[in-house]
Formats: sequence, C-alpha cells, structure tokens
Amino acid sequence: MSVSVNLPLNSRGKLASSLPAEQLAEITELFENRLEGHSLDAPFYTDPAIFKIDMHAIFGQHWIFAASVAELPEPGDYVTVDYGPYSLIVLRNDEGGVNVLHNVCRHRGARVLTESTGSTGNLVCGYHSWTYSPEGNLIHASAPGETKFDKSCFGLKRAHGREYAGLIFVCMADEPPADFEETAKIFEPYLAPHDLPKTKVAYQQNIIEEANWKLVMENNRECYHCDGHPELACSLFPTWGLTEGLVPAHLEEVWDRNTQAQAALEKRCQRYGIPYEVFEELDTRVAGIRISRESLDGDGESFSPDGHRLSKKLLGDLRDFRLGRCSMHLQPNSWFHFLSDHVVTFAVFPINEHQTLVRTTWLVADDAVEGDDYDLEKLTHTWKQTNLQDKAFVELCQAGANSPVYEPGPYMKSEYQVEAFINWYVQRVQEHLA
Amino acid sequence: MSVSVNLPLNSRGKLASSLPAEQLAEITELFENRLEGHSLDAPFYTDPAIFKIDMHAIFGQHWIFAASVAELPEPGDYVTVDYGPYSLIVLRNDEGGVNVLHNVCRHRGARVLTESTGSTGNLVCGYHSWTYSPEGNLIHASAPGETKFDKSCFGLKRAHGREYAGLIFVCMADEPPADFEETAKIFEPYLAPHDLPKTKVAYQQNIIEEANWKLVMENNRECYHCDGHPELACSLFPTWGLTEGLVPAHLEEVWDRNTQAQAALEKRCQRYGIPYEVFEELDTRVAGIRISRESLDGDGESFSPDGHRLSKKLLGDLRDFRLGRCSMHLQPNSWFHFLSDHVVTFAVFPINEHQTLVRTTWLVADDAVEGDDYDLEKLTHTWKQTNLQDKAFVELCQAGANSPVYEPGPYMKSEYQVEAFINWYVQRVQEHLA
Amino acid sequence: MSVSVNLPLNSRGKLASSLPAEQLAEITELFENRLEGHSLDAPFYTDPAIFKIDMHAIFGQHWIFAASVAELPEPGDYVTVDYGPYSLIVLRNDEGGVNVLHNVCRHRGARVLTESTGSTGNLVCGYHSWTYSPEGNLIHASAPGETKFDKSCFGLKRAHGREYAGLIFVCMADEPPADFEETAKIFEPYLAPHDLPKTKVAYQQNIIEEANWKLVMENNRECYHCDGHPELACSLFPTWGLTEGLVPAHLEEVWDRNTQAQAALEKRCQRYGIPYEVFEELDTRVAGIRISRESLDGDGESFSPDGHRLSKKLLGDLRDFRLGRCSMHLQPNSWFHFLSDHVVTFAVFPINEHQTLVRTTWLVADDAVEGDDYDLEKLTHTWKQTNLQDKAFVELCQAGANSPVYEPGPYMKSEYQVEAFINWYVQRVQEHLA
Repeated sequence: MSVSVNLPLNSRGKLASSLPAEQLAEITELFENRLEGHSLDAPFYTDPAIFKIDMHAIFGQHWIFAASVAELPEPGDYVTVDYGPYSLIVLRNDEGGVNVLHNVCRHRGARVLTESTGSTGNLVCGYHSWTYSPEGNLIHASAPGETKFDKSCFGLKRAHGREYAGLIFVCMADEPPADFEETAKIFEPYLAPHDLPKTKVAYQQNIIEEANWKLVMENNRECYHCDGHPELACSLFPTWGLTEGLVPAHLEEVWDRNTQAQAALEKRCQRYGIPYEVFEELDTRVAGIRISRESLDGDGESFSPDGHRLSKKLLGDLRDFRLGRCSMHLQPNSWFHFLSDHVVTFAVFPINEHQTLVRTTWLVADDAVEGDDYDLEKLTHTWKQTNLQDKAFVELCQAGANSPVYEPGPYMKSEYQVEAFINWYVQRVQEHLA
Repeated sequence: MSVSVNLPLNSRGKLASSLPAEQLAEITELFENRLEGHSLDAPFYTDPAIFKIDMHAIFGQHWIFAASVAELPEPGDYVTVDYGPYSLIVLRNDEGGVNVLHNVCRHRGARVLTESTGSTGNLVCGYHSWTYSPEGNLIHASAPGETKFDKSCFGLKRAHGREYAGLIFVCMADEPPADFEETAKIFEPYLAPHDLPKTKVAYQQNIIEEANWKLVMENNRECYHCDGHPELACSLFPTWGLTEGLVPAHLEEVWDRNTQAQAALEKRCQRYGIPYEVFEELDTRVAGIRISRESLDGDGESFSPDGHRLSKKLLGDLRDFRLGRCSMHLQPNSWFHFLSDHVVTFAVFPINEHQTLVRTTWLVADDAVEGDDYDLEKLTHTWKQTNLQDKAFVELCQAGANSPVYEPGPYMKSEYQVEAFINWYVQRVQEHLA
Repeated sequence: MSVSVNLPLNSRGKLASSLPAEQLAEITELFENRLEGHSLDAPFYTDPAIFKIDMHAIFGQHWIFAASVAELPEPGDYVTVDYGPYSLIVLRNDEGGVNVLHNVCRHRGARVLTESTGSTGNLVCGYHSWTYSPEGNLIHASAPGETKFDKSCFGLKRAHGREYAGLIFVCMADEPPADFEETAKIFEPYLAPHDLPKTKVAYQQNIIEEANWKLVMENNRECYHCDGHPELACSLFPTWGLTEGLVPAHLEEVWDRNTQAQAALEKRCQRYGIPYEVFEELDTRVAGIRISRESLDGDGESFSPDGHRLSKKLLGDLRDFRLGRCSMHLQPNSWFHFLSDHVVTFAVFPINEHQTLVRTTWLVADDAVEGDDYDLEKLTHTWKQTNLQDKAFVELCQAGANSPVYEPGPYMKSEYQVEAFINWYVQRVQEHLA
C-alpha cells in the first residue's frame, strides 16, 4: 500500500524516506492542478511531505552550488554543506580537484567532520577513529579478529563535484544532468575576467530565514519589491526585470538613467572584450540559467551609496572599475554578483519545510588588505541590510501560506523570472515523479 | 480516499486543510463515544488533527470575541488577532463600524499588517505595495503591461464584524450563526451602565499557556479550584458555581456572607434599575452565554484585597461603587468582569493543539488618570496573579492528557459549567461534521 | 483499517496511542528485515511511531531502573520519573516498601506531584485538592451533592515497584516479566558488600542528549570508542570488552597491565569472599544482565587520574579500597559502577524519538563528609567529562541517522554487547507485537 519515491541512494531506510501511495497521489495531483502564472498552492510552502520530495527530486538530482574556490583553495581544505537531512563534505584534493563525500561514517553513522570549514588530511571519524582517505576510501578501522570485514565495502558514499570558473557544484544523483557542462560553457566567459581563483573570502554571513526555500528563491527572482531595499536601490537600478512599456511612472527617470548607463557599459565592455549580453534559459533547460552584465547607478562601480568602488583592488586582469555587475541566476539555489572590485555569492540551503539557511559570501582580490583596500563594514553593508529586508519579506509570505484562506496570487509581468523558477521547479519534480 | 472537512474558505489548499477519510472517521467516532459528565478523551487535548477541526468547526464558524471598543476607538485604528493559522485585521472604519479582513495579501500571500495594533489609512502590503482600502478593496497595484489583471478580483478576503455594547466580535463563516443578535440583546442591558465606549485600555497582558485551548476554557468555567487563587478569593467569593446544599464545610461561612451580600446587591440594583438576574444558556443555543451580576466580598466594590475600589472614577453614569461584578461567559473563547470602577476582558486565542494565548485587558474610565485615580500595579495585581496560577493548573492537565494512562475523569456538580462548555463544543463540532 | 498496539493501560485514548495498520505492518517488516550484526535502520532512531512502540513494548512492559534507595530513604520520600509520555511517582511507604503510582489525577488529569523529588504524606493534587493515600487510594475529594460518586473507583493507577540490594525498579505491565527476581538473585551478592542502604546521594546530574535512547544505550555498551574518554581511561582500562586476540597493537601494554591487575583483584576478592565472575545473559533472558568485578588501572581503587580513592570512607563492611569496580549492565536502560569508595548509577529516560535524559547519581557512604572525606568536584569529574563526550558522540550518530544515505554499519567483535542490546531490543518488541 506504500510505494517509495525513487531514491537510489538509500535502499533500506524506507519508512523515513518513502511516502504513502495515497499521499503521493494527492501531491502529484497538486502538481497537475497548478495554476499557471500564479504562486503555488499553500502545501508547496508548508507540507513536510513536499519538502521531502523537493529534497529528493530537486536537491538530490541536480547540480547545486556549494561554495566558491576561495573557500577551499588548498589541498585538504574543506567545507561541509547541509541540504535538509543531507550533509556533504566538499574537499579540495591533491590534484586540485574536488571530492564530494556524504558526511556519514559507514560504521555507526556519526558525522565524520563536525566543523563547517577547515583543513584535513585523511578524514578521521571522532567516534571510533575509522579513517578515510580524501577520496572516501576506508583506509583504517581497528578490527582485530574480524575475518569477514572487507574495508573496501565501507568507503564514504560519494557524490559528484565540479568546478567551473571558480564555482564549485555538487550533485548527489547517480547520473547527474548532462546539460550542466553546456551551462558552464555559457557562464565561464562572463566570469573569467573576475578570476575567482585569485580572490579571498572577506566575509561570510549565514542567516536562517523562517520560510520555505522556494519563497526565498521567488523573492530573489524579482525586483518588483525593490522599493523595500533603500540601500540596494542606490546602486542596483530598481527597474531590474522590467522591459520597455512596463516601467511604472515613479521609475521612469530611473529607467532613463539606466538605459544610458547600460549603453555606456556595453560600449566599455566591447572595448575590453568582456561579454555582457543577456543569456536566459531559466526554465527551458535542466541547468537553468540567466546571465548578463548590467550597469549600476551613480559611479557605476559597486554596491555603495554613490556607486563608488568598495575595494581599491581590481579583480583579475580588469582595468576599469566601471563595469557594473555581472549578474547570474542558477536554478535551483543560487545567484551571484560579479563586480570589478568584489564578488557576492548567495547559496540557499533548505533546512526543513519552513526554515532555510541563506549563505552570503563576499570575495575580494586575494591581495586586498582589510583596512587599507577595503572597509569590511562598508563592503558588506548593502547586502547585509538587503538580506535582512528579504528575510522579513519571505517570513511574511510564509505566515500567509499557513492561513487556510491563502490562495495562489498572480505573478506580474515584472515577476516573469519568479514564474520561470516555479515552472522549472514544477517541471523538474514532475519529471522525477513520472 | 481522502475527503475534505467542509472548508468553504479555501478551495485549493486541500492537502493542508483536509483530513484523510480514515482519520476523520476515527475522530467522528471519538466524538460519538464521548463519556457524558466526564472530561474529554486525551486526543481532544493533544491531537493536531482535532485542533484543525476545532479551528474550522468552532473558530471558523462562530462569533468570536476579538477586542473591546477601547482598543480601536478612532477610524483607522486596528488590531490584528490570530486564531491558529488564521490572522484577521479588525479595523474601525469611517462610519464607526468594524471591518474584518483576512490578513493575507492576494498577490503573494504576505501578511499585510504586521503589528498587533495600530492606526492606518489604506492598507499597504509592505512587500510589493499592493494597496487596499479599509474595506479590503484592492485600489492600487503596480501592474504595467498587464492586460487581463482585474483589480476587483483581488480584494482582501472579508469576514464579518459586529459591535455590541462596546464589544467587538468577528465571524469567518459565510453565514454566521443567526442567534448571536439575540444573545447580544440579552447582554446589552447588563453592560450598558458600564459604558464601554467611554473607557480606555489601562493595561493588556498576553500570556502563552502550554495547554490546549479547551483546557484553558474548562479551567475558567469552575471555581472548584479557587482555593488555588488566594488573591482572587479576597474579593470574588470562592463559592461561585455552588448552589444550596453543595457548599463544603470550610466554605459555609463564606456562603452565608455571600448570601447576605448578594441580597444587598440586588436591592441596590433594583434601586438603580440595573439588571442582575442570572441568564444562562451555555449549551442550549449556538451563541452560548451566561450573565449575571454578583456581589463581591469585603467592601464589595472591586478586585482588591479588601474589596475596595481600584479606580476612583466610576464608569459611565454609575453612581455607586458597591455594584459587585457583572460576570459574563460567552462560548467559545471569552469571559468578562464588569465592575463599577473597571472592566476586565479575557480572550482566548488558540495557537496550536498545545499552546494558547490568553489576552487580558483592563479598562478604566477614559478620564481616569494613572497615578491619581488608579495605581496600575494594584489595579492589575489580582488577575495577573490569578492568570499565572491558572496557567500552572492547565499546564499540569496538559501534561496529564499526554500520558497514555489518562482517562476522562468525572465533573463534579460544581463544575456543571465546564460540562456545559464541553457539551456545547461537542454539539457544535458534531453539527459541523454532519 | 486501524488497529491498536496492545495497550492494556488505556482503553479510551485510542487515537493518541494506536498506529494505523499499514504503518504497523511497515514497522513489523522493518523488524523482520533487520540486518544482523549491524546497527539498526534509520527509522529506529528517527521515527516517532517506532518511539511510541518502544514506549509501550519496552518501557511499558519491562522492569525499569528508576532510582536507588539513597534517593528515597524515609517513608514519604519520593521521586518522579518520566519515560516519554509517562510520569510515575516512586514513593517509599511506611512499611519500607515502594509504591509506584501514575502521576495523573483521576479528576481532570493534572500532574499530582510536580517536583522531581521530595517528601510527602498523603498526595494532594494542587488543582482541586483531590487527596490520595500513599497507596494511591482516593481518600478525599470535595463532592457535595454527588450521589453516585464512588471514591473507590478513582484511585491513582498503580504500577509495580521492587527493591533489590538498594536499587528500585518499576514496571507498568499488568503482568511483569517473571524472570526479574532470578536476575536480582544473580546481582544481589555482588552488590551486597557495597551496602547501598547505607549510602547517600553526593551529586546527581541530569543531561539531555539530542539522540534516540537506543543510541545512548549502544554507546554505553562498548569501549571501542574509549580513546575518546581520556579522563576515564586513566582508571577504567580501555580494553574493556576485548578478549584475547582482539587487542589492537596500541593497547597491548594496557592489556597486559589489565591482565595482571585482574589476577590480583580476583585473588583479593577470594580472600574477602566477594564475587567477581562474569555473569552475562544480555539477550538470552527477558531481564537481560551482565555483571562482573573488574580491576582498575593505577592504584586500582577509584575513577581518579591515578586510580586512587575519591572518598576516604569505605562503603558497607568493605575493608580494602583496592576492589576495582563491580560493573553491571541491565536491559533496557541502566548501568552501574560499584566501587569500594562510591557508586555511580546511570538511568536513561527517553523523552521523544530524538531526545533522551541521562541521569547520573554519585553515592558515597552516608557518614562521609563533603570537604573532609571527599571533594565533590574530584569525585564527579571523570564521569561528568565522560558523559559530555558521550553526549557529543551520540548526537553525531543521530545526525547521521537522519541522512537518507545512512545505512546500517557492521558492529565489530568488541561491540558484541551493543549487538546483544539490539538483539534483546528486537526480540522484546517482536514478541510484544506478535
């Protein structure tokens, strides 16, 4: 009477990860009955069973942004990242590649690494000292008298890891989606000038938002709410996402300024041979992406009150501060701003159906000196404030989704990228459940 | 295999608000097997599915006390009240009436008003500035380029609001119970002399009790436990709820004092033309009520250690402090004490199956001056202490209901009003489920 | 479609304590499919339904260690102990026996005793003063006018209590397992020399571990992880649980020291007539037990850095400090160390599927004087540190069990007592469900 959702990773723990057939049928119907052009039905934001499906069908099957190269530059450096019930170790190996290992000891199930970041040689579980190589092979376990114990059967379970242009992605699926490499080829030329391997972490912020991860993503995909971001609106044109004819009266002046700044930016990019065109396939491919280079207001350099640079050191081989921001959105859990003086990465890690960790990381040139080249408070001010404002917004939506009178509302034209995210989500889950 | 409980307000979010047919059948059986004269079976106090039913069948279908006039005297004044997953805006409109609106923006579901009390003109959602009139009509939403967007379809969902004798009630049902107006006609003459529209809020206390809302209500409906309220017993005769022949030995002296005081009070009421008779239909009508005027001990004026007045200003046109208390109980969530010098209102707002907000509000004459006419500490002392004692009592009961060995215990004769509350509750839910 | 697990104690609260038939079938299958020699499948550590079964089939049906005589020496002394949703009063009666009563008032279900320890005459519920004799009989309830109220029907529900060698056990089953008395006869001669009735509580520590109770027990049943207990390893040989041929290289020297110390200890025990042999029937009887007397390192006297005594007063009639530790393990929830100078008892009280209370009690001779005969900090240091280390270990395992990729891992030979605990657990539940 109960069938498992397809969960190749765990053949035993059925009760924990399967859903009763009836419940699965109800959820499948909810997906089918989805009202296009509208936000999702309440259970998508509140139901633990749908969260479980999200973890398997989205986070368990797709390439997920985990960290940037600056977080694990040297062999042995690692970060641990958690998605719902999963915990992964992302480790720089001796060949400069990235190993991704499930952080679950094969003996008694203990977390092997307990810090969120660090550096290690072999991986030693703190409970009974089972010791794994950086590749996850069990290389030592005290087992005197054991005649049938075959260490080769007890390596840490592995997932896939890839690095492109200094961004590290992981995938827990047996067969990761094939089109991710294509997507990487699209974004690499945009990112290359910023030379992420020559950056360092200036600051990392982890905030827990009391909302479903999809509300966090929806909020990121539109600037219809940008009146609520006064600090951000100083530099990021709040007309983002609008097109000719969709500009509200109070933003017309901003629109004109943006148009002029964009034209100047594009001319500058042409001069330097830096790509700037919009590439957008948010829901028309598995590895959904939007990327473009967009002008900033004021001095056009960075996320400051007057648009002026926040770090004196240019990234990579860039020769001009006035390069606006290269903005990238990746499905399902990340977005990025690549500026001439710094980079901000955002990674969304679902905790449960109503809590989400948002990790924001500020990167500067690896030779930039705090205090001399940049002021940490000023560097991080705009996005710290913006994140707090966004946290408040999505938490108000979560409260609303809990109400029995909530019903899906219409997305506006300027929210078409929110709709693209939802379309992508619905397609991806439906394909997985099929 | 799964049927919805009748939920007219939400045609889409089925998974969140419906119960599987089997579970509904089990719960229906629990209602049918209820042991009369006894407390309810454990699941009524512990089961989240029954809480969901309570929210729909009781709080979703009946008139609920929300606030008194002193909390929103002027046009634009509002309070927000939450029952379980519901959030309502209760707003004084320009005509002096009360608008009740679901606090869920029709765009993306955000809470529109985020404060528990305040004053506003139009209602502006903080997320995307959708703007609603005080009647809930969507009067502004930036929607450039939208050709099919009909604002008239996206007003805030409305509920019903009524004000009687200065008390404000809300009802979320499509068709509110018809007999509430009758009940209001019963209580209005009792309350009129206290003239609530000429009071102000002296203090409001919100406490969260770790217990099911029905345990909170049961506790209020009897004074069998009044030995546990030493401060209250100074002025409120702990023989409350007893009748001739049910008085235990240790209360006989109190009973005699009460009898004499009651006779004197009734004479005084007759002189002033103030009603005092007991009217009691707690489980024989949908809008269940008990009201009467009852003497107080000591000076007979107020809830103080010696029964003496706590505010020097008489309410309304009253000309005598020695008028005891007009006591009113309304199903399902409120009780009141109307005294000559102040009023105390109690509203019970369920949070979930094991947590309940109890809101206590002290009202004094609007021209009474704190410090001169009343001492806030003294005014609130008795019920603050009593509330804490009651919180401890109901939390002990919740712990007991969690035990697998708990079984319904017998109500004593002096607890007949507890039984009336439970009878009312069971009848109302059964009628709704039928 | 829904059947109850056999729950003789509660004939009414079905919804709270039964499981749907399908779910029960799935769980039964999980028990049947258990991989021998391996840790359990994830749901055993994470699923609330299996926790409910554990409470009924294990804690509801077996003799459970509750307290030692020093915690309730005098008539009227009591402790309250909670297992999951159960709360029990364990009370010393006037005859010197132990009464065990469910801590749920038969009137409205309130907890009767609200302190974890104390002394009382009759038991008076604080809510409505229903008064019970120490045997649980209702001896007073104010009930004027009640004609049908029969006090004899409303005594506190009783459970069974027994005391052996100063240890108090409770059992909630109608018919407690018959072999417990046999088990008591086995351990009494080992404990008698320590004369628990002549001890006092020096300190009691309650810590909550964020892990399923079975992970807490598993952790206790092996010393494979004892490298993680530096303080303990000073006196308790970390070769515990090993046998000839299973000793890892780095412990060979310790093993030799242990062998010599054990031989000397046994000679000493023979001289004094104190039993020391290993008796082990951990999964071959209902009242599973392991008991033995084992040498300690260093001076061989106590749990100190050099093995030297921690209290100057010998327990009972002992005449020698160098008696190592008598170690006892009882299924399902306790372990003990009886030393010549003090005793440490450990009781595990499950809270829910992912939280467990561990209560550790240090007993010294009743005439030992703190400051003179023992230093409290030194007395408790080793096990306080060890408990914290163990808490960290089991919490890492709980996190792992939550991961969908967790799968049961192999127990090593030195973990055979862990396996015995799990075997016992599986057998006991399967028998109950059958």
